[in-house]
Amino acid sequence: MIATLKFTTLLLAVVVCRATQDYGYKDVEEPTLGDSQYGSLWPLPQKVQMSTVAFKLSGVSFQIVDAKESSSGASCSLLQNAYRRYDEYIFPISRMQGQNKKKAFASDVSELQVWITSADSECDNYPSVTSDESCECPGMMFVFLVGALSLETFSQLVYEDEYGAKSINRTEIQDFPRFTHRGLLLDSSRHFLPIKVILANLEAMAWNKFNVFHWHIVDDPSFPYMSRTFPQLSQQGAYHPYTHVYTPSDVKMIIEFARLRGIRVVSEFDTPGHTQSWGKGQKDLLTPCYSGASPSGSFGPVNPILNTTYDFMAMFFKEVSTVFPDAYIHLGGDEVDFSCWKSNPDIQKFMAQQGFGTDYSKLESFYIQRLLDIVTTTNKGYMIWQEVIDNGVKLKADTLIHVWKGNQQQYQAEMARVTASGYQALLSTPWYLNRISYGQDWQAAYKADPQDFNGTDAQKKLVVGGEACLWGEYVDATNLTPRLWPRASAVGERLWSDKDVKDTNDAYSRLIQHRCRMVQRGIPAEPLFTGYCAHEYKGV
Amino acid sequence: MIATLKFTTLLLAVVVCRATQDYGYKDVEEPTLGDSQYGSLWPLPQKVQMSTVAFKLSGVSFQIVDAKESSSGASCSLLQNAYRRYDEYIFPISRMQGQNKKKAFASDVSELQVWITSADSECDNYPSVTSDESCECPGMMFVFLVGALSLETFSQLVYEDEYGAKSINRTEIQDFPRFTHRGLLLDSSRHFLPIKVILANLEAMAWNKFNVFHWHIVDDPSFPYMSRTFPQLSQQGAYHPYTHVYTPSDVKMIIEFARLRGIRVVSEFDTPGHTQSWGKGQKDLLTPCYSGASPSGSFGPVNPILNTTYDFMAMFFKEVSTVFPDAYIHLGGDEVDFSCWKSNPDIQKFMAQQGFGTDYSKLESFYIQRLLDIVTTTNKGYMIWQEVIDNGVKLKADTLIHVWKGNQQQYQAEMARVTASGYQALLSTPWYLNRISYGQDWQAAYKADPQDFNGTDAQKKLVVGGEACLWGEYVDATNLTPRLWPRASAVGERLWSDKDVKDTNDAYSRLIQHRCRMVQRGIPAEPLFTGYCAHEYKGV
Repeated sequence: MIATLKFTTLLLAVVVCRATQDYGYKDVEEPTLGDSQYGSLWPLPQKVQMSTVAFKLSGVSFQIVDAKESSSGASCSLLQNAYRRYDEYIFPISRMQGQNKKKAFASDVSELQVWITSADSECDNYPSVTSDESCECPGMMFVFLVGALSLETFSQLVYEDEYGAKSINRTEIQDFPRFTHRGLLLDSSRHFLPIKVILANLEAMAWNKFNVFHWHIVDDPSFPYMSRTFPQLSQQGAYHPYTHVYTPSDVKMIIEFARLRGIRVVSEFDTPGHTQSWGKGQKDLLTPCYSGASPSGSFGPVNPILNTTYDFMAMFFKEVSTVFPDAYIHLGGDEVDFSCWKSNPDIQKFMAQQGFGTDYSKLESFYIQRLLDIVTTTNKGYMIWQEVIDNGVKLKADTLIHVWKGNQQQYQAEMARVTASGYQALLSTPWYLNRISYGQDWQAAYKADPQDFNGTDAQKKLVVGGEACLWGEYVDATNLTPRLWPRASAVGERLWSDKDVKDTNDAYSRLIQHRCRMVQRGIPAEPLFTGYCAHEYKGV
Repeated sequence: MIATLKFTTLLLAVVVCRATQDYGYKDVEEPTLGDSQYGSLWPLPQKVQMSTVAFKLSGVSFQIVDAKESSSGASCSLLQNAYRRYDEYIFPISRMQGQNKKKAFASDVSELQVWITSADSECDNYPSVTSDESCECPGMMFVFLVGALSLETFSQLVYEDEYGAKSINRTEIQDFPRFTHRGLLLDSSRHFLPIKVILANLEAMAWNKFNVFHWHIVDDPSFPYMSRTFPQLSQQGAYHPYTHVYTPSDVKMIIEFARLRGIRVVSEFDTPGHTQSWGKGQKDLLTPCYSGASPSGSFGPVNPILNTTYDFMAMFFKEVSTVFPDAYIHLGGDEVDFSCWKSNPDIQKFMAQQGFGTDYSKLESFYIQRLLDIVTTTNKGYMIWQEVIDNGVKLKADTLIHVWKGNQQQYQAEMARVTASGYQALLSTPWYLNRISYGQDWQAAYKADPQDFNGTDAQKKLVVGGEACLWGEYVDATNLTPRLWPRASAVGERLWSDKDVKDTNDAYSRLIQHRCRMVQRGIPAEPLFTGYCAHEYKGV
């Protein structure tokens, strides 16, 4: 898309008036626009040329409008929603003065014209891997649109001069994302996450140009997804049958909120392990574990030897494929514990019949293979944790392998193996943000690079991106948001910006300001270090 | 103090009706009252005998009242404020039904009589080290009062039965704190903490029976304390001269809010190091550092060789001693960097004159000694970080030495040294809660014990308690509260309960419930592990 600005001619007069008033009270180093040549831009666009020539935006007259030539406009609620959102970010207060209808002296920049060039405006569609996230910049200023819906970069260029006047420097930007898959995983099973928390974090994702919400919605501890086909799954498996569940309406709302921000929602229903909560509402789904010759009363992974298991999965994933419009489903497949299978005499018998010997990874593969066949009938692509390929399961060519294990050397080797096999790869190992440590750990996340492994160019091209993961053992509504931001922002820039953008000092300077901007917009992003924001967080 | 409950006679009828309704949806382990024999009590009282005999409290008729025999009552706003606060905790919703003035069938427990026995009720005084925090329990139930002002323990005994009816088990409790000084340090210099955040944390402190708010109010990065005598200190030294300062009214409000909760406010004005922000508003206070033969433009610790320094300190601490009513002031004295003093020719000359040789710790002691003399004239006692005694400064016998350095072996040796010298000691080393790590680190804090060192009984008696410290490098309004609670609760119990209370499993079970109670009361205390609260946090 293309966006241009209309300028009035008051430029010189205004510039002459900008004598610096010295308030004389502040010698403390505060990060200012001057600290990085790129101001507070985050993530850094692919090409930026900022000049020192400044223009003003009047809260009374400035408007975001559809360009005449644009392929979509007033009837596109996705765009109109974005205009409203960014108008409020840019003018959180001064629009109130606009209510007086007094015409202030004409501003330097009177409007931002948003010009959508792609034939498919995606106004009513869901964002997808093929969404056009790039932008051209013909004029003196321009706007980048994520999935044709974000005015984020433009808003990041606006700053306040010493009189509080909204200003913007003449800037030329060319932009597109380095990776198409820039994800964030949230886990609503270990702790239930209220809708409000999910929405707030989708908002913050958009500010950081993340475009995939990986919703790890169910797991061992609880099953908050309310299924229409199998309502007993959440009735029995959620922490509470109606206060701690996501109804179909909740899910719809979250998907729509994400769509308006160019964010895909990829749901994960992890099997055959991580399914304790499934067993509460679905009799005979899990494997009964044995203690000696008799059932111990506890259960293991999904029971892979019963036809009823596959009947259930077929119906369940048929529902899931319609509830979640995204072209991909994440099928999990990680950390399957074989001890329960080993203890069960029926499983042992089945293993012998199939000629699996004592190799239980063959049984796991047997299950996964049948599950993939089921999901394939729903016309969805799938994502899967790395164990599945480690165990040698046959996969469709367009499967995304999600790498999460090991140390740096190990995950780099895995990325090489996965891409050498011709599969697309997605990296998460260095971005397990649930793991915390004292001090500025965003830097380690910032330094990791998903294409940093031994492989051919063709292999590197198979890397579609990565995901920051915030597993839920130690986070819920009380602490999730400040623990995630701005740490996840480091991953956001790594996945968006050019691979050569790796100056930690420059990033630090921009990130401090980006973090204060998130705080000002209402997200309790935690501080990077000693210092302050002009507008501190108002909550507790 | 003594408190008793008045019972009606409906007991049996109610108990008979208590058939358990099985909702059939929940097999998940949820910590319940039954998990610990002590329910959700935190910190654990010195002696508890809980029976299984349950009584009900009616939201319509139950009242907290002054016992006839009480030495203070209706005219004591401190008590009346506490009644209101705890009424709201116990009946957050059902009091609304009470508005209907309908008389429900008589409840089992109709009132809680609060009987203050101490001659000095402290209704209008500030809490002090001699405040009576103990309680006797003559009846079948009783209430513990911290500084004659908390109904916390009573409220912790109240639970909801399966119909949501407020219930309480017949319980006998005898209680008093193990240590008189149970402190929490917050740092408002590295990040400014809005009043709202400080008040919320004072509230949580009261729930955890902390009784000292150690306000590390100024430090190198900023000087938010607005001084009437030297207003330029905050005008120049705060992050912002009026949005990031504590006015005299703010300070008063914080002290009063704390007083109503039995919490002392001990302010710390740390010198001669940690004073960069002081130098902005007070010319010639800091030592000019030299680079070779000429001043480098940077400044070091307070300049100890000028009379003007001591004139300033005398006036400044005279003000501080009236603004903060507590009998103690914390004077800091930690981490003095000698390099700047060493570089300065005037200091070198002074060292020679005094015969200090090149031992700069003698210069530090010279400064501290004069400062202590100044503060002594204000009739305040003082607390000081351990370096001061490490450097051999002569101190008043009632000085509190605050131990914060080293590993376990080192701080235990320091506690032994300090008390062997006859000084009172306060431990913080194992409770630097700003240091975070992945997982349940509250357990390490819980296991530390301030009396665990080699020493005589007389030495052990000199240990007055400890303080949890949350230094401000990485916390501000966005993340301070969830990072602090319930981790600080572990320190709260260690300092309150008997030294033999150290069963981590029992503590875990109670702490999970205590944490959910804090969340329900509006404090975003972070989760200890996977699970849920019936009432989740409502914020983001």
